[in-house]
Amino acid sequence: MSEQTRITPRSEGYSRWYLDVIAAARLASYSDVPGCMIIEPNGCALWERVTEVFDARIKATGHRNVKYPALIPLSLLQRETEHVEGFAPELATLTHLGGTKLEDPLVLRPTSETIMYADFAKKVASRSDLPIKINQWCNIWRMERRTLPFLRTFEFYWQEGHTAHATEAEAQQEVLDMLQEYRRFVEGTLAIPCIPGRKPPGERFAGAEDTYSIEAMMQNGKGLQSATSHYLGQKFSRAFGIQYSYGVGQSEFVYQTSWGMSTRIIGAIIMSHSDDKGLVLPPRIAPVQAAILLIIDKKTSVDEQLREGFLDAVRRQLDHVGVTYVLDATDRKLGLKQYDWEKQGIPLRIVVGASEIAHGQVMLIRRDTSAKMTVPLGGLGAAARLSLEEMQSALFTAAQERLRQKSRVCTTLEEIRAAFKEGNFFVHTGWAGSKEDEKGVKEAGDGVTLRCIPLERTPQHVDTCFLTGRPAEHQVILAKAY
Amino acid sequence: MSEQTRITPRSEGYSRWYLDVIAAARLASYSDVPGCMIIEPNGCALWERVTEVFDARIKATGHRNVKYPALIPLSLLQRETEHVEGFAPELATLTHLGGTKLEDPLVLRPTSETIMYADFAKKVASRSDLPIKINQWCNIWRMERRTLPFLRTFEFYWQEGHTAHATEAEAQQEVLDMLQEYRRFVEGTLAIPCIPGRKPPGERFAGAEDTYSIEAMMQNGKGLQSATSHYLGQKFSRAFGIQYSYGVGQSEFVYQTSWGMSTRIIGAIIMSHSDDKGLVLPPRIAPVQAAILLIIDKKTSVDEQLREGFLDAVRRQLDHVGVTYVLDATDRKLGLKQYDWEKQGIPLRIVVGASEIAHGQVMLIRRDTSAKMTVPLGGLGAAARLSLEEMQSALFTAAQERLRQKSRVCTTLEEIRAAFKEGNFFVHTGWAGSKEDEKGVKEAGDGVTLRCIPLERTPQHVDTCFLTGRPAEHQVILAKAY
Repeated sequence: MSEQTRITPRSEGYSRWYLDVIAAARLASYSDVPGCMIIEPNGCALWERVTEVFDARIKATGHRNVKYPALIPLSLLQRETEHVEGFAPELATLTHLGGTKLEDPLVLRPTSETIMYADFAKKVASRSDLPIKINQWCNIWRMERRTLPFLRTFEFYWQEGHTAHATEAEAQQEVLDMLQEYRRFVEGTLAIPCIPGRKPPGERFAGAEDTYSIEAMMQNGKGLQSATSHYLGQKFSRAFGIQYSYGVGQSEFVYQTSWGMSTRIIGAIIMSHSDDKGLVLPPRIAPVQAAILLIIDKKTSVDEQLREGFLDAVRRQLDHVGVTYVLDATDRKLGLKQYDWEKQGIPLRIVVGASEIAHGQVMLIRRDTSAKMTVPLGGLGAAARLSLEEMQSALFTAAQERLRQKSRVCTTLEEIRAAFKEGNFFVHTGWAGSKEDEKGVKEAGDGVTLRCIPLERTPQHVDTCFLTGRPAEHQVILAKAY
Repeated sequence: MSEQTRITPRSEGYSRWYLDVIAAARLASYSDVPGCMIIEPNGCALWERVTEVFDARIKATGHRNVKYPALIPLSLLQRETEHVEGFAPELATLTHLGGTKLEDPLVLRPTSETIMYADFAKKVASRSDLPIKINQWCNIWRMERRTLPFLRTFEFYWQEGHTAHATEAEAQQEVLDMLQEYRRFVEGTLAIPCIPGRKPPGERFAGAEDTYSIEAMMQNGKGLQSATSHYLGQKFSRAFGIQYSYGVGQSEFVYQTSWGMSTRIIGAIIMSHSDDKGLVLPPRIAPVQAAILLIIDKKTSVDEQLREGFLDAVRRQLDHVGVTYVLDATDRKLGLKQYDWEKQGIPLRIVVGASEIAHGQVMLIRRDTSAKMTVPLGGLGAAARLSLEEMQSALFTAAQERLRQKSRVCTTLEEIRAAFKEGNFFVHTGWAGSKEDEKGVKEAGDGVTLRCIPLERTPQHVDTCFLTGRPAEHQVILAKAY
């Protein structure tokens, strides 16, 4: 094992471990541009899988993809006051172009509401122009003081859905529908349990009436906001003049939504499933599900034709059940091959050596448990498929169990402080819900924030606000978060 | 027909027609950012199809996708002198970030050689680190004085392949291999015949040793450079210090290539196949291949169950042969539906009305010829598949015929001038190949440029240079171009 790819155990330092896993799995590396990472082939393939699977859901739910300019005139961004104020500290502004000073500086998009909605205003006239349901996969820029690959970088990638509707009810439905799409994707494909909830007012998207999110718990008990869905109401449609006419001389501003999931979801995948040996990828999102490790032993040579015929049969078994694979036929030793594919998170390794060929079988090794299984060649397809399904389900169950174990129900500030002194938890408690209370949350512990008001039943109802003792208006989750 | 979607006939003005087709097919529209277009859902779906088909070829030829930062430090860009000089007039530079003046300004990438190769220098040590074969699908920026949707915009999209090799021979092979991949894609999938050739020195990519391109002819006889492949030799590896060691204390700079195809290929699709009724899409690149037009006649009502059963059978027929489709069940009149799907370039229309349902048949209409065909329901799949294949082939044949008809062999400057006075042609002629000769090409006519030195046999060999009368060193093509 070279020094370069040594992975710090989680017990020694979770942040160091996270960076080591990324380096060892060759997902990303540092670039010469401050705060910007290079997404390496393995990381890019993972993001492409996320894109592929979720893009199909976006299209199946009636949205279509578009591309708007990455540069937004500052004057447009300033049209919705709360929006520009929220993003002001994070903007990258282009003041000169081709040596000429710009009268209206251009901003690298931190999000695309403003450029899109200025365009919506031109496209909406009557009710028949509605709904508008579009999505954009793109790069965006937000200046960050401290960067962390995938979680916080100056440039990152995401999808941003934007819709405009004739009625409030339809827009509200869209917000919740897309939140559920995120949840299904994150739980069903990424094997990460998550909690759909509403954000408290202080955590709302700048310019939104309401922000919803799905919150996931990382292995270290910290929270990660994995996707958001915003109800924008008429805030932007009033600012941009997006209205439709109906009846005689009647007109109404449209109701809008926006929703997004970014490359930070790769950070969530890493921190939910990986171990001290490196990356672990849930089979449904793994760009490559199996690595065939051909072990060419110089002592016990195998007839070339026999070997190729055997490998061909292995491939056909996997093709037949739709398992994706790579063949590692390099002359590296078995141990090195094992180590290399293991740290890259490949769900299954299939060992083919002289003895396997002679006996008409292969050895199957699962990434998460390291369990080995000898399988006759003819049963490989079925066994690989079953192993992948079991692994997908085992990863989800383990994450659910962790979420359960690292959740606490607390009623008072003292109990909450004690919990966060012990470690990182999702603390379920009651909250009175005023702006002042939200500021008071920091008293609960260093870095503790109010993550969300869960949409679903909490483990145990808390009747009073943990801060004020007043009747609890909401059940909430407190946690430290990325 | 509303004024908005009226399409200027080509005979009245080719440029106006081009813009009208884009508007009528809703491929792109203007944005509030100077020089930047909005790629609308129809245009985005077309680019996604280009991406999907060509990305599969990129991967099948052993390249992997990456993402490098969009902002490049100016100091990096300046490391290769010819490169920065070539791009200087087109750069968009970020001088301030978060209110602070940058010591090293950041440039919006006009191409990614410099940021990638600074990184290659860190990754290459020994011969086993080679070859590097990567590709990036991304947005890039080049300032343009006059913009034209898809052809010349400030921001546009492309893929850029970048490779590094241990030997010159391997790099040269890569350059030609990728040029052939472009040609196969453009001819086989987009039905656009094109001429692979080498660029004259004055048209080389800034920093390249040699630039190759595929040149296509548009309907108006103008040329469009549809993709380029560059042999960079050791120019960049020397500037960036990308070298590998071998033997004892020996080292060698790597040999490099880069190659790209952009959203301008959509301009090529439009200008190769479309007609006065609007867009025509070759079936193999059309995001939707057929529109099922359901005609609900209020007078002759059809039993709902019967109708749904019939439509379901239509869909199954198309699914079975892998033809993609949309169903237009709006209550618009047949004429309007026809007109709408026609101008969007959908290759096939399938009309289903009361009479069709009663007789167990449908009417099939081909976009390019407007030929109508009555087909029994049970034979729809086969008939649709065959029609699409015939259309794909007919579009290619028509474009080939046009290329043949608008090509001329000329031997003297006078002949060439006469040709360009008559119209736009691809003029095949002889050239002595000096830098001065290249400048002299403008004498051949206003806007005439030296497109390429074709790699393949020209229609007729010309022995002397059209400018100097000296022995011709190369056979070349002159044309007006986009």
